Amino acid sequence: MSQSPAAVPAAFMRAEIAEQPDVFRRILTAYDTEIAPVRQAIQRRRPRLVQFVARGSSDHAALYAKYVVEVLGEVPAGLISASTFTVYRRRPDLSDALVVAVSQSGGSPDLVESVRQARLAGAFTVAVTNAPGSALAEAADRHVTLHAGPERSVAATKSYTAELLTLYLLLAPEIGGLAGLPDVAAAVIAGFGDIAAGRDLCSGVTRLVTTGRGYAYPTAREAALKLMETCYISAQAFSAADLMHGPLAMIDDCVPVIGVLPPGEAGAAMAPVLGAIRDRGAPIWTVGAKGDFTIDSAGLPDALSPLLEILPLQQLAMSAALDRGIDPDRPRGLRKVTQTR
Amino acid sequence: MSQSPAAVPAAFMRAEIAEQPDVFRRILTAYDTEIAPVRQAIQRRRPRLVQFVARGSSDHAALYAKYVVEVLGEVPAGLISASTFTVYRRRPDLSDALVVAVSQSGGSPDLVESVRQARLAGAFTVAVTNAPGSALAEAADRHVTLHAGPERSVAATKSYTAELLTLYLLLAPEIGGLAGLPDVAAAVIAGFGDIAAGRDLCSGVTRLVTTGRGYAYPTAREAALKLMETCYISAQAFSAADLMHGPLAMIDDCVPVIGVLPPGEAGAAMAPVLGAIRDRGAPIWTVGAKGDFTIDSAGLPDALSPLLEILPLQQLAMSAALDRGIDPDRPRGLRKVTQTR
Repeated sequence: MSQSPAAVPAAFMRAEIAEQPDVFRRILTAYDTEIAPVRQAIQRRRPRLVQFVARGSSDHAALYAKYVVEVLGEVPAGLISASTFTVYRRRPDLSDALVVAVSQSGGSPDLVESVRQARLAGAFTVAVTNAPGSALAEAADRHVTLHAGPERSVAATKSYTAELLTLYLLLAPEIGGLAGLPDVAAAVIAGFGDIAAGRDLCSGVTRLVTTGRGYAYPTAREAALKLMETCYISAQAFSAADLMHGPLAMIDDCVPVIGVLPPGEAGAAMAPVLGAIRDRGAPIWTVGAKGDFTIDSAGLPDALSPLLEILPLQQLAMSAALDRGIDPDRPRGLRKVTQTR
Repeated sequence: MSQSPAAVPAAFMRAEIAEQPDVFRRILTAYDTEIAPVRQAIQRRRPRLVQFVARGSSDHAALYAKYVVEVLGEVPAGLISASTFTVYRRRPDLSDALVVAVSQSGGSPDLVESVRQARLAGAFTVAVTNAPGSALAEAADRHVTLHAGPERSVAATKSYTAELLTLYLLLAPEIGGLAGLPDVAAAVIAGFGDIAAGRDLCSGVTRLVTTGRGYAYPTAREAALKLMETCYISAQAFSAADLMHGPLAMIDDCVPVIGVLPPGEAGAAMAPVLGAIRDRGAPIWTVGAKGDFTIDSAGLPDALSPLLEILPLQQLAMSAALDRGIDPDRPRGLRKVTQTR
């Protein structure tokens, strides 16, 4: 398979965004034979602690999974610093812990080394990657394939949502009522015309803030990364609570804000923050249950809303890049697989 | 005591930056009677997991303490999401866990509620605040006073380094050789004339990136927050490894980079990242053992370098604000105590 960008700008990114409902279908189909056995192996061990190790978009998927484990599973969860293992060469006691490594390529040496060390430290280790033969897949006790299919866009889209769904299916204490997800995602994609106002918001800006809370915070982080990668905008993501602790001073009418409004309590908790932003004169565009771009999750569990809310934000990053004359399939200075130690 | 800003711009921030060697002296003096008993109470419980809860600058101090616990103590550590307790009202099983809440004011309702819930969930809870009578101090099993003295600058400086030192003294498995710290800090402060090149770097910019790795990553985060609060610069902090996973594309000759170069392995791991940044044409200014602003830690343990590396960056934020005609004691839109839920 060729790794060279297609001739048409954004050809890869556009196709991969559109493919996400099919990716969800493939994952749901693979659930019984591939995900459920690993889920059961995890449940048998009753981990007292879940630690994730990941980088980039996969780190945002891990942050989502941290909420799933803490909020739905009521088990403490955290993001482990790879540098603990790889730079400082220490090995925390991880008996009774589950360590989940998340990576599209499975090729980053620091993740491979972290999983090796975590396993030696007593953890049960699971790798979630898009590459069954990868070094990371080999290093872990168990491996789960993402079924995203080959991802050629440098900016991850379908592998990110594949990670979200796979991690939910592995780690949520109860799952069900998911059969409608692919069609609901397709309906969100069918409404992409409604991102026009978001595109206007991004026009010509060099700085931008994204914000969310709870399950929506990883979405804000991932949206900011897409805007950095494809549009070279200095996009900063803050949890809505942290935004109030200092960064608010930086916001004015030159710094537009994209808000992610999840359903339920976390969405309600966003209201005063959006009010404070509005008071500072910043243009705001929102995505979510009650957003400018409305997400109809059609009765799916609230914990699945991040699988839908990121879709228009991926499309926004792609469109805003094209508006700037940038081909988001070829961001300057990046390669598809990043090697960090 | 008056809460109104002094008449001279930056009078509070300047005095509080200069006070830090004395704050270190007060903390070391209080160690035997106030910190050691709580340290011993923690060690008696042999926690299998340490979770921190904090916001803003205190969250960066907590991130530092996470490295101390993981790297020096080899115990898993993480940052707990307050929203788990306060928005979603869930209570992870925290038996055998130590939960440490960090806050200058001790007044943020979400932290108070998180500590209450963590205690009910079986955790041993310790609050580290600058306010012995605060709601947070009352809510925890044990409280440790920061001895920073009244902090009137909205941008936290002395309370941040007081948190770093206090958390180190509470949580590092072995401590000692610290008697020289106040004088070493005073020597760093005496060298503040050397920030001139950093000040030039910040001149007129609206965007900026800070980066570090390991112990230096919290310093990069805290420096970015100071620049946001006092200069309204969109300052983004990345761990040196994460920077390579996407955000690098955004960096060009219009986005200067401040690098924090810790001593030892983590500093060495920064070299290829700085090379990649230089290749993208970005102006770079570094602080640390081998930095443009040189930190001589005079034989103190490497884990204490964050207490020194942040000092010139606090001074830089203050000076850059004054260069812009902003009084950093009165950042727009902020109050000293932020109430989030």
